[in-house]
Amino acid sequence: MQFEKPEKVLFRHCDPAGIIFYPRYFEMVNDLVEAFFDEALGWPFEQLLAQSGVPTAEIRLRFTAPSRHGDQLRLRLRVTKLGRASMGLEFHAHCGAEQRFEGNSVLVHVDAAGKPCPWPDTIRNLIQTRMDIDR
Amino acid sequence: MQFEKPEKVLFRHCDPAGIIFYPRYFEMVNDLVEAFFDEALGWPFEQLLAQSGVPTAEIRLRFTAPSRHGDQLRLRLRVTKLGRASMGLEFHAHCGAEQRFEGNSVLVHVDAAGKPCPWPDTIRNLIQTRMDIDR
Amino acid sequence: MQFEKPEKVLFRHCDPAGIIFYPRYFEMVNDLVEAFFDEALGWPFEQLLAQSGVPTAEIRLRFTAPSRHGDQLRLRLRVTKLGRASMGLEFHAHCGAEQRFEGNSVLVHVDAAGKPCPWPDTIRNLIQTRMDIDR
Amino acid sequence: MQFEKPEKVLFRHCDPAGIIFYPRYFEMVNDLVEAFFDEALGWPFEQLLAQSGVPTAEIRLRFTAPSRHGDQLRLRLRVTKLGRASMGLEFHAHCGAEQRFEGNSVLVHVDAAGKPCPWPDTIRNLIQTRMDIDR
Repeated sequence: MQFEKPEKVLFRHCDPAGIIFYPRYFEMVNDLVEAFFDEALGWPFEQLLAQSGVPTAEIRLRFTAPSRHGDQLRLRLRVTKLGRASMGLEFHAHCGAEQRFEGNSVLVHVDAAGKPCPWPDTIRNLIQTRMDIDR
Repeated sequence: MQFEKPEKVLFRHCDPAGIIFYPRYFEMVNDLVEAFFDEALGWPFEQLLAQSGVPTAEIRLRFTAPSRHGDQLRLRLRVTKLGRASMGLEFHAHCGAEQRFEGNSVLVHVDAAGKPCPWPDTIRNLIQTRMDIDR
Repeated sequence: MQFEKPEKVLFRHCDPAGIIFYPRYFEMVNDLVEAFFDEALGWPFEQLLAQSGVPTAEIRLRFTAPSRHGDQLRLRLRVTKLGRASMGLEFHAHCGAEQRFEGNSVLVHVDAAGKPCPWPDTIRNLIQTRMDIDR
Repeated sequence: MQFEKPEKVLFRHCDPAGIIFYPRYFEMVNDLVEAFFDEALGWPFEQLLAQSGVPTAEIRLRFTAPSRHGDQLRLRLRVTKLGRASMGLEFHAHCGAEQRFEGNSVLVHVDAAGKPCPWPDTIRNLIQTRMDIDR
């Protein structure tokens, strides 16, 4: 299951070296995951968070080439694993043909008390069907 | 070679779930690395960046317990590897006895053109001497 | 001369009280000004900043109602004054019919040395023509 | 009633022009207000926010000289007005003798439902006594 989102590198993303300050990449990835839940799963965070949560348990990014102010990035997310209450994600960003970063993360679905709880069936079915199609 | 820095969890670090928004952890880690170069190596970023740079090539954090507004964190950094132009770092954060995150990163020393270049001898000697002592 | 931009309130904008953390509003306004220079004036910041700058000299925002995660905001900018090297801007944000903030700022066009310098004629003419039409 | 806090300009505060990106100044001011409530009033935000809130209703900053990476700033806050449920604040930042910004804001004390509610007597007395002494 894949999801793609364009993002232009803005002034506020960049540091004195004129390239993206890497914590801003993590904000971009967070926005990408939020857009994926909203647009691909039909479960926007503002609804999801009323009753549960999806904290990030672990995340890693490797920056393969610098991104500069004005670059048009293409961010991509892929679900690589679906556990009972967890989800493995893979990330890629390109500008034209050049890769800018790759990485992965693990999310956990938790209830209001912060305890891991199973993904709702509608979400599980939606992701699994799409993962099968992608295979 | 180890370095430690206290940091209180402030309002601006926290999200609607009342815990640290994880991109803010990466800002904290960046501040920790900046303080390490300034206080432990005597090479503050504002001087270093006039002639070279130390971009982060890769970084990973695993969040082992949530941090809340007002928590007094103790952030720790350890140099685990010193290459010709690279540096491996390990991070830990605790609140009291509880670990909040652990992770690691790789930095690269680059010249004004962005090409990897050897660490200055004074920095290399300072780190190696301290790494030997820690062993 | 007016410019409008939609912006959804995302998780990363919100604080433990579940509303937008006000420094994020200033980031939104900065993005709004950047989009205005790019889309309305045809002078994207990534080009402009290669030779000059447009630092904000002063800015004020009044928050008239809280904005929550998921709200669809409509941000509006209006040029209220065009000096030799300065520009007065007025801002408004609404969600549906409800105003969320209003404010204003002053930008200054500076050369590479940071000295105020006149707006290029093409930009001056473009803005003045549009300001006359709006009148 | 005055309060002062030092703050070094870090890498993460700065933009491609090598100076503080102004939304970071608003984050600094928010941290200054949070430190004032904690250290001067003995009412840290993490306690205050459990039962009430102090949203910023309006804020204005005027940037009088640019601040660069490594600058040692001295941030100052002064309570200029104390209403039933509101507080007027004045801000100044200097680096050495040079002023970097001045501004002001209005905070409102609200209950859990977001309605303005009177300052607690202990806080009111503490501020008024100190304002009288400063006069």
